Amino acid sequence: MRKIEVDTRNFMYPTLTTLVGANVSGKPNYITIAHVGILKYATVSVSLNKIHYTNAGIKENGTFSVNIPSVPMIQVTDYCGLVSGQEVDKSALLKNFYGQLKTAPMIEECPANMECKVIQILDLGTHEVFIGEIAATYCNEDCLTGGKGEDLLKVNPILFSMSGARYFAVGQEIGRAWNIGKVLKSKEVTFHTPPPLAQE
Amino acid sequence: MRKIEVDTRNFMYPTLTTLVGANVSGKPNYITIAHVGILKYATVSVSLNKIHYTNAGIKENGTFSVNIPSVPMIQVTDYCGLVSGQEVDKSALLKNFYGQLKTAPMIEECPANMECKVIQILDLGTHEVFIGEIAATYCNEDCLTGGKGEDLLKVNPILFSMSGARYFAVGQEIGRAWNIGKVLKSKEVTFHTPPPLAQE
Repeated sequence: MRKIEVDTRNFMYPTLTTLVGANVSGKPNYITIAHVGILKYATVSVSLNKIHYTNAGIKENGTFSVNIPSVPMIQVTDYCGLVSGQEVDKSALLKNFYGQLKTAPMIEECPANMECKVIQILDLGTHEVFIGEIAATYCNEDCLTGGKGEDLLKVNPILFSMSGARYFAVGQEIGRAWNIGKVLKSKEVTFHTPPPLAQE
Repeated sequence: MRKIEVDTRNFMYPTLTTLVGANVSGKPNYITIAHVGILKYATVSVSLNKIHYTNAGIKENGTFSVNIPSVPMIQVTDYCGLVSGQEVDKSALLKNFYGQLKTAPMIEECPANMECKVIQILDLGTHEVFIGEIAATYCNEDCLTGGKGEDLLKVNPILFSMSGARYFAVGQEIGRAWNIGKVLKSKEVTFHTPPPLAQE
């Protein structure tokens, strides 16, 4: 297959579609954000263009929430990315609750909710990246499956791809991590500079 | 559905499984990383535990690559997360190429490759977060579909969930972003404080 150079196009998709919550001027507001990331086990990043209404609320309180909408919530999830909290009270479409931090509104309809403390803000010119430490996590009872992986399918999150601006569901399970690659360990001896085998 | 508080568990999954490339002591090396994120259109984050062999190479050159493996590459992708470049020459299992930056090795078998310049490194104690600006992107010819969204399915990336340590494929398309939520605009009038309609 021929490789083509395509400027600086970002292929790091899909990303997870989230509803980021913040109190803005004392009232709950949510914005749809898919430019998110995991920085460490309980440390996450959420990137917001500075034009958004939400940024001031996050900075005012030093807190935000990350709510994971599920596929059946696709309409309201997309809607929260279509209109600004400056003009529309989006929280009225959803059931709101607060947790330990008191100032990070969360969405009851979302199967999983994390309230975060801001530990750092990166200024990237047009965007601000809010780095948050998860203070507490809430989830629907049926999403607790003993960490056997079914919880992801229970959450049934919405994936986002910038190309074509499409949402996708999670597909089938294809293997176990730190496991399915073990079969290649036997091939290590075929390396051009035979190395000692890795100790596990 | 009852909400349960579950400590600080991170539900921000799935994330995208990538192979991060760097020259370490002048030789190409790859590590499987799924704790990645998008910070801006062409700005990405890649988080590596400080114990890894790759970190020194990224810092030495100020460059790294992000390669997107596809589902059929699941074994070699997982393998690159099982063994350290200190002991095994993982690049020997793959065809390597270099681009504009000269020091960020990329994987020909991966349908999409981005070479990045490090613009910032965040120290998060146990982890270093490398923030990279995409300098150039390369992709397989068949992944160019005029941005109609099929390219994600052509890339056929591998998703990762920490819970149960599982890999998943991307599932079916469920809607168009900035579009499927428009149907709720008609409901704005039912808000408790009727706001003016958002101008698009």
